[in-house]
Amino acid sequence: MKTHAVQVGAERRELPVINVGEVSVALLNLLGDTSLTEAAADELAKKMPPNIDALVTPEVKAVPLAHAISVRTGIPYIVARKTEKPYMVDAVSKTVLSITTGKPQDLVIDGANIPHIKGKRVAIIDDVVSTGGTLNSLTELLNEIGGEVAATLVVFTEGDERDDVITLGHLPLYPKEAGV
Amino acid sequence: MKTHAVQVGAERRELPVINVGEVSVALLNLLGDTSLTEAAADELAKKMPPNIDALVTPEVKAVPLAHAISVRTGIPYIVARKTEKPYMVDAVSKTVLSITTGKPQDLVIDGANIPHIKGKRVAIIDDVVSTGGTLNSLTELLNEIGGEVAATLVVFTEGDERDDVITLGHLPLYPKEAGV
Repeated sequence: MKTHAVQVGAERRELPVINVGEVSVALLNLLGDTSLTEAAADELAKKMPPNIDALVTPEVKAVPLAHAISVRTGIPYIVARKTEKPYMVDAVSKTVLSITTGKPQDLVIDGANIPHIKGKRVAIIDDVVSTGGTLNSLTELLNEIGGEVAATLVVFTEGDERDDVITLGHLPLYPKEAGV
Repeated sequence: MKTHAVQVGAERRELPVINVGEVSVALLNLLGDTSLTEAAADELAKKMPPNIDALVTPEVKAVPLAHAISVRTGIPYIVARKTEKPYMVDAVSKTVLSITTGKPQDLVIDGANIPHIKGKRVAIIDDVVSTGGTLNSLTELLNEIGGEVAATLVVFTEGDERDDVITLGHLPLYPKEAGV
């Protein structure tokens, strides 16, 4: 299996390269990788801009990362859920097309979290930003709520490098290959 | 709004009591509650039985808790996902009816995780066990893979008290009430 080597702090991983649609991508999965998540949280917490009131992360792969950054910085985090839950009150939502799953997904924020976003400086936390679809939709949603997205922090950018996010590294996109 | 007071370590919370179907329940949401998650991880890590090889948690509310317990114990954790992902190989799954959402949900374990379960002693981590539907399905799934579920650790039991799980406390079920 083709792999792509990455390093975060002292942690090195050989990420599997898999086909997604017409391209091949290096697959980062923080879920279940405790030491990589902790290393990424160490490094991203150091890069956190000042005066951030809340972190916001899309469900689910970056949730442990957001928790670990929250532990280090003392900044609370909010999860944008994939579906509206029966207990939510006045939830707000946006639809986004995920390149990883190929399906439209909703980003849903419980109305109970709005006071922590409206008029506040928020930072988006995610594992990988690729086309930016999730990032753009989440930014629009937070802006509509009245929050200022002061920063976006991700473990890796993927595909095009970009200077509008704080990142620990970059993953290339490969042409789709047979047998990977 | 009616609330139910709980204490975990030094953390005290007034949980909202909400209607779910024909009963009212105290709603615990660890997502976004960093200090409560850390306190629960401290207390559950102390109660972890010896020689556990892996933690398994159902997506998504207990994922930060599983991460935090993994940090403290050094035991890796695996997330049983709600859907099969395109990158999974030889995934195994079970369907369970969630009382919180009222909908059937799948528990899916990536085949890549099977070597960490088969022939191993695993501990299930969850936020709340109520009817035990998720717990029973996940236990069956882990047994079918060849894992021994040596313990289940939850923050709270709910409804009936039970002696088959390690817990930090108990949440009552209330009769359904108007206006909560």
